[in-house]
Amino acid sequence: MSSVEVCFSPPLYQYKLTKDDFVTVVVDVLRATTSICAALDYGIKEILPVKGVDVARKKKEAGYIVACERDGKVLDFADIGNSASDFRKDELIGKTVVFSTTNGTQAIKMSADADQVLAGAFSNLDALSQYLLDQKKNVVILCSAWKNLVNLEDSVFAGALAAQILQNPAYDTECDSAKASLDLWQQARHDLKGYLSKASHRHRLKHLVSDEDWDYTVRCNTAPVIPVYENEKIISLNR
Amino acid sequence: MSSVEVCFSPPLYQYKLTKDDFVTVVVDVLRATTSICAALDYGIKEILPVKGVDVARKKKEAGYIVACERDGKVLDFADIGNSASDFRKDELIGKTVVFSTTNGTQAIKMSADADQVLAGAFSNLDALSQYLLDQKKNVVILCSAWKNLVNLEDSVFAGALAAQILQNPAYDTECDSAKASLDLWQQARHDLKGYLSKASHRHRLKHLVSDEDWDYTVRCNTAPVIPVYENEKIISLNR
Repeated sequence: MSSVEVCFSPPLYQYKLTKDDFVTVVVDVLRATTSICAALDYGIKEILPVKGVDVARKKKEAGYIVACERDGKVLDFADIGNSASDFRKDELIGKTVVFSTTNGTQAIKMSADADQVLAGAFSNLDALSQYLLDQKKNVVILCSAWKNLVNLEDSVFAGALAAQILQNPAYDTECDSAKASLDLWQQARHDLKGYLSKASHRHRLKHLVSDEDWDYTVRCNTAPVIPVYENEKIISLNR
Repeated sequence: MSSVEVCFSPPLYQYKLTKDDFVTVVVDVLRATTSICAALDYGIKEILPVKGVDVARKKKEAGYIVACERDGKVLDFADIGNSASDFRKDELIGKTVVFSTTNGTQAIKMSADADQVLAGAFSNLDALSQYLLDQKKNVVILCSAWKNLVNLEDSVFAGALAAQILQNPAYDTECDSAKASLDLWQQARHDLKGYLSKASHRHRLKHLVSDEDWDYTVRCNTAPVIPVYENEKIISLNR
C-alpha cells in the first residue's frame, strides 16, 4: 500500500511521516507552479528556480531571461513577472528562463530528500495524478503557503490531487492534513473560483493579478505537463 | 476590528500575523486541554504543566500528584494518566496536579508572547467564546497537533471557536487557516463524533482511550471553565 501525505506549509515538511520511496509534489497555485506548468506547456525549454533576488539579478547580468517578482510586483531588472501570461509568449519558446519567487522556489529546494520533485497546479491536475499513479510511489504534497502561513488555494489543490490518487485502491492515507484537504476540495470543487475568492492571498494580489490570470489559475487541465526538478532545473517529462 | 487567527501546528505559531494585544487559546483536544477543563471543572485547584518526563519525575519525588503519559501510555512513576476521567476524582478536589503531556504543554509554554494564554476544548466551547468576546482582544488559536503534524480534532475545534467569535461583528479574519477550519467545522458539527472518528490520532489512541473518554471528548459544554496559564500554573478564572 502506498501513502499520500499533505504538508500545509514548508515548516511542517521536516515532520512528515513519509521517509522512503516518495515523490514530493510542490504546490504554489498563486503563482509559481501555475506559471511553471504554463511555461513548459507553451514550449519554454527549462526553468531555473532561484531563491534570492541577488541571484536573479546576477543571472540577468549573465545574460539569462529572468522572471522575478516579490510580493506580487515585478522587480526593475527582470524581464517578466511571475504570472502565467508572462510565460506564454512566442519569443520564450525553446528558451531557458530563470525564475525567482517568494514561496514556491523555497519549497522546491527544500524537497531534496524526495526521489523526485514535481510541480502541481490545477492546470496539470489530471496529467500529474495519472503520472503519480503510474509511479506507484508514496506521494507527499508540499504546499508552498504564503510566508509560511497556510493558504486556501494550495490546500484545496492538495485535496484535489489527493482525491484523484486515493481513488486508486493501492493508495491510502493516515494523514489528517490530507483528510482535511479532501474535505476542503469537496466543498470547493463545484465552484472553485467562487470558493477560492475568499482566499487571503487572492485579496493580497488582487490589484496585481488580472481577471484573466485568475481565471487561468482556477481552471483545471489546461497545461497537461509533468514538471520535474532535476539538476537545479525544471523541465517537462512529457514535452 | 479585532481578528481571529488559527495556527494548525506549533511550528507555524512564530509566523502568525497577529503581533499585539492578543489572547492565545491552546487546543489539544486529545487530550491535554480536554483534561485540563475537566480537572478544573471538577474542582482541582491548579495544574502545573511541565514538558519533560524528567521534570515530572522530580515533581513526583518532591511530593506532587503527577499526571504523565507519553504516546498515550501512563508512565510507571505517575499517579494518573492524561484522560479526562483520570482527573475527575474526589480525592483530587482542591489539590495541585503536575501535568506532563507530549504536545499540549509544549504549545502552552510557547505562547508566552500573548497577553493571556487560555485552554480550549469542546467541553468549554461556549464559556470560552463568551469570555473571549468580552475581552474584545485579538484571538490566536494554537492547535497543539501531534508531533507537529496537523490533526483533525484540534483543527475542527479551532473552526468551532472561530465560528462563535466571528458571529460578532466586531471580529473578522484574514487568515486562511481560520477559513479552512470554519469549513471543516461546518462539515463536522452535525455529527462531531462520526466526523472525528476518521482522525488519525483517534486511531493511534484507540486501544488506550475508552469509549467513555472519547464520548466525553467530543461532547460540547460539559465543563464551562476558563483555564488560564499564569505564573507557570493553570487555574480557572471562573471557579
